[in-house]
Amino acid sequence: MNINQRLEALREVMRREHLAACIFPSTDPHQSEYVADHWKSREWISGFNGSAGTAVVTLQSAAVWTDSRYFLAAEEQLKGTEYQLMKLKIEGTPTIAEWIGRECGPGVEVGVDGMVNSANSVKELIVDLRKQGGITVRTNLDPLSQIWRDRPAVPESKVEIYPMEYAGESAHDKIARIRKGLRELHADGMLMSSLDDIAWTLNLRGSDVHCNPVFVSYLLISSKDVILYINKVKLMPEVLAYLKAEGVGVASYEDVKKGLKDYFEYNILLDPEEVNYSLYKTVTREIVVAESPVKRMKTIKNEREIVGFKSAMLKDGIAMVKFLYWLSGYIGKPEISELTEISIDEELTSLRAEQPLYRDISFDTIAGHGSHAAIVHYEATPETDIPLQPKGLLLLDSGAQYLDGTTDITRTIALGPLTDLEKQIYTLVLKGHIQIELCKFPSGASGTQIDILARKDMWREGLNYLHGTGHGVGTYLNVHEGPHQFRMEWKPAPLVAGMTITDEPGIYLPDRCGARTENTLLIVPYKETEFGKFLQFESLTLCPIDKAPIILDMMTQEETDWLNAYHQRVLDTLSPHLSDEETAWLREACAPI
Amino acid sequence: MNINQRLEALREVMRREHLAACIFPSTDPHQSEYVADHWKSREWISGFNGSAGTAVVTLQSAAVWTDSRYFLAAEEQLKGTEYQLMKLKIEGTPTIAEWIGRECGPGVEVGVDGMVNSANSVKELIVDLRKQGGITVRTNLDPLSQIWRDRPAVPESKVEIYPMEYAGESAHDKIARIRKGLRELHADGMLMSSLDDIAWTLNLRGSDVHCNPVFVSYLLISSKDVILYINKVKLMPEVLAYLKAEGVGVASYEDVKKGLKDYFEYNILLDPEEVNYSLYKTVTREIVVAESPVKRMKTIKNEREIVGFKSAMLKDGIAMVKFLYWLSGYIGKPEISELTEISIDEELTSLRAEQPLYRDISFDTIAGHGSHAAIVHYEATPETDIPLQPKGLLLLDSGAQYLDGTTDITRTIALGPLTDLEKQIYTLVLKGHIQIELCKFPSGASGTQIDILARKDMWREGLNYLHGTGHGVGTYLNVHEGPHQFRMEWKPAPLVAGMTITDEPGIYLPDRCGARTENTLLIVPYKETEFGKFLQFESLTLCPIDKAPIILDMMTQEETDWLNAYHQRVLDTLSPHLSDEETAWLREACAPI
Repeated sequence: MNINQRLEALREVMRREHLAACIFPSTDPHQSEYVADHWKSREWISGFNGSAGTAVVTLQSAAVWTDSRYFLAAEEQLKGTEYQLMKLKIEGTPTIAEWIGRECGPGVEVGVDGMVNSANSVKELIVDLRKQGGITVRTNLDPLSQIWRDRPAVPESKVEIYPMEYAGESAHDKIARIRKGLRELHADGMLMSSLDDIAWTLNLRGSDVHCNPVFVSYLLISSKDVILYINKVKLMPEVLAYLKAEGVGVASYEDVKKGLKDYFEYNILLDPEEVNYSLYKTVTREIVVAESPVKRMKTIKNEREIVGFKSAMLKDGIAMVKFLYWLSGYIGKPEISELTEISIDEELTSLRAEQPLYRDISFDTIAGHGSHAAIVHYEATPETDIPLQPKGLLLLDSGAQYLDGTTDITRTIALGPLTDLEKQIYTLVLKGHIQIELCKFPSGASGTQIDILARKDMWREGLNYLHGTGHGVGTYLNVHEGPHQFRMEWKPAPLVAGMTITDEPGIYLPDRCGARTENTLLIVPYKETEFGKFLQFESLTLCPIDKAPIILDMMTQEETDWLNAYHQRVLDTLSPHLSDEETAWLREACAPI
Repeated sequence: MNINQRLEALREVMRREHLAACIFPSTDPHQSEYVADHWKSREWISGFNGSAGTAVVTLQSAAVWTDSRYFLAAEEQLKGTEYQLMKLKIEGTPTIAEWIGRECGPGVEVGVDGMVNSANSVKELIVDLRKQGGITVRTNLDPLSQIWRDRPAVPESKVEIYPMEYAGESAHDKIARIRKGLRELHADGMLMSSLDDIAWTLNLRGSDVHCNPVFVSYLLISSKDVILYINKVKLMPEVLAYLKAEGVGVASYEDVKKGLKDYFEYNILLDPEEVNYSLYKTVTREIVVAESPVKRMKTIKNEREIVGFKSAMLKDGIAMVKFLYWLSGYIGKPEISELTEISIDEELTSLRAEQPLYRDISFDTIAGHGSHAAIVHYEATPETDIPLQPKGLLLLDSGAQYLDGTTDITRTIALGPLTDLEKQIYTLVLKGHIQIELCKFPSGASGTQIDILARKDMWREGLNYLHGTGHGVGTYLNVHEGPHQFRMEWKPAPLVAGMTITDEPGIYLPDRCGARTENTLLIVPYKETEFGKFLQFESLTLCPIDKAPIILDMMTQEETDWLNAYHQRVLDTLSPHLSDEETAWLREACAPI
């Protein structure tokens, strides 16, 4: 079936069900950032496969909303279909509700699957559509269930136990801490729906979702019981025994609604940003609306997790240096055109895969050369892939899943001679990166406060970047872990010791060039004074930062000192694990400026 | 009547009215920061006169809650009464609701005057007291009305017209813009209750409140009418004629409730943080809960206002330099002990009063010498006043109301030899001040983002200050004008061109020393690029910054360059208005470092 045939089949269902429009989001029942193929409804109905976007189909029209990262890709992918592209945050773009109001008129009904939309998002949609002349919403129908014939099944891959050696705290103890957190919020229990929260809580990992070692399930905690709702085929006998020993019961995935109906406590905590609308509406008990206490617990790493992170970062640094050493043989030479964005990614991934405890990449590599580096979320495809040239910048953002930790690193590399503009943006990005590394701050400060340190020198030049400066990183879990962040928008999550956070400013000049430099940092104590506890950052990432593009005059002495000290640490830590040739190259790469 | 007699009289009323407790806040019906004497109920019933604090009286006990600024003063003032001091933000201090729950037990009724508490604060109190065993709240009684015999009247001072020459926009035009703002919020009208918002809207000024040129009133705007609720004795015939010409009707102050009852539109905008609970509950129409659109309009100064600000700042700079020149004759000399904190304030005020269009001070001067400088809101009284010594720092935070603008400036001055610690904190404060002055930022950034620039160098030394870094300043209006601020806490108000904002970092080391340096800044365009509009700050304040305490090694070249350029501008702008002796002194004070 091509897209137009799929639309026709959908509209037949819509006519039968008296729906004027259907809405297809990017999410799954667990509000995952990456979703299993089973839930890629929006991609199936529209053909647009970006990570963020919403398709809306009426009886006579269709449109896809997405953000600036995907304007080009979406235009390409929607060509030849009846879909209009709706560019988010561009003046004149209607909201989904406004557009449905215009296309369908008042008094009609719109279908949206309550299972794959958060409670809050559906509530807002209901309000917005009501304003468009009393349009109502039906939430109990997945219209594709009747027409998507070769739909991939919900994944059934096996769950594995995450050893205490890496987790550092038993599931039993974590559950006890969660219950304590719930009591502080005056809640008797909670439904956990985020897959990484469940994996963290139970010390289990899976492989249901690309790059994210999670497994599809729900976890219902009451004051007496803990029940994991999961397809039982995923649980081997030793995992079943483990769960029993940790005090966790098991029920089938589909029975979560029954579990919520039978829930016997006075109240239950539900995070309406996390729990889907259908489950939210199933609950008849009093709802404590609050952020899940697990979110914050998970972001503060324990001693074993920190040891694991450092081990993973050492291995990742070794792989990165082996890669950079290999690449250095091509830099500035015509033979570099034998390499492409995709081929260097393959080389890097194979070097990582040689490292002990390697499991997977942690996200799809971004390898962008020349003007591709200016596309923030560029992912080379066979269609866009280009040979490297012996000039300009290569932006390489990649990471891996090791059993003992997750990595995320960006380096921007000079492949030969650079323009002044390339050098200028590279140096501004590096200065911003270092200013964050140097920051000392009171425990509990927010990432919104600190974010400006990465931008202030760019702002003087009228430059900026529109993504956040950093995000948390999971322990052999999702590479994006919230709620703490560095970003311009307000994120009230306070920063405390034990958190990981990336430091990744960038500058992107469309059709010209781009640069980003990223280390993953650990928050550690700095000093305690009469004004309280102060914290600082420790770089976990160990990999040289290319010195070739740096305009020395733009660097302060303090910034230069930081870079030289960092490079000395990289050299000292990595060289015992490298060959003589690699060490010689690294010594040069780490020589003081 | 002494405090204990007042308590006895109150308890008689409470017994008659079956109230188990009464609560007395710091505010007036308009949620003013400074209140007229008529509304100083908490001070009358407790004797505690700090600007922030709440008194609670039960039939057998009494307590005052206040924050760390006032712990010492409150302890002193409550001595000999039955009041307990409750220290806010100190571990173990109960909330008011918890304390009432413990003291009075369940099922009782508590009195709180709904006229002097915001709608939100009473709503929260009702929820909190209900949790303490179903304690209910009565809001329609001012218990002091029956017992405070010599209570000052509601002020009746005359209102004056604020000339277009300074206001720059007619009341008629402002009202049209407010109505447009209301339409954007889908509101048909609004009740304005903040006294400075009303003064700004109508281009009127008064003298009902210490330091703030406002007048007690409400303003009710509908799609057809604008009614000023005010004691008519305050309006001279020319003001009445002016109001009529601007399309503003007049009704008596007490009739605002009737006005709200008779309000005929479909809905009305009320800001529940601003409008008091009693008026809020009077409304029977649909309420649009939102921040008043006036708040933001008022903070963006028009061209005439900016001209006025610059004129006021010039005069204030002249007065400050005359003062500093006078003070310089005593610095480092034993004769300085002839001066005290209060006497220098009198000298400064008299020099300001000589300037054209001077009307008043804009807040009570903070003149603190030695360890007094470490008390953030120190205000010298005859009891605390001390002679100056020819050593250490003097912190002087002061400002004036001129008809063309309001000023707010802090200088910290070396009175003789300094300790290393004094020099260190002074230099760190100056560096923080300059970092804000140097900042360039995208239009719409928030003060929460920028605040850290003033603190980052202090944080490296484990130092900090717990107040905001800056606040807006009114146009011959309140010296504190929101909602935009620089502060560690989240303030979502975006910064845009035309706003005034102070830049006033400090460090306070209790029992040792304190320093603060403050200029008032104007936000002006910087440049426009593909990343949008960027803004910068222009110092409005014109006054030398003492160079004697600066540790030069701690300053970056950029910071030194800023200071020298600022001093050159101060010298060039002020010297034409000074005597030869004053100019000679200023030339020295402004010589480059």
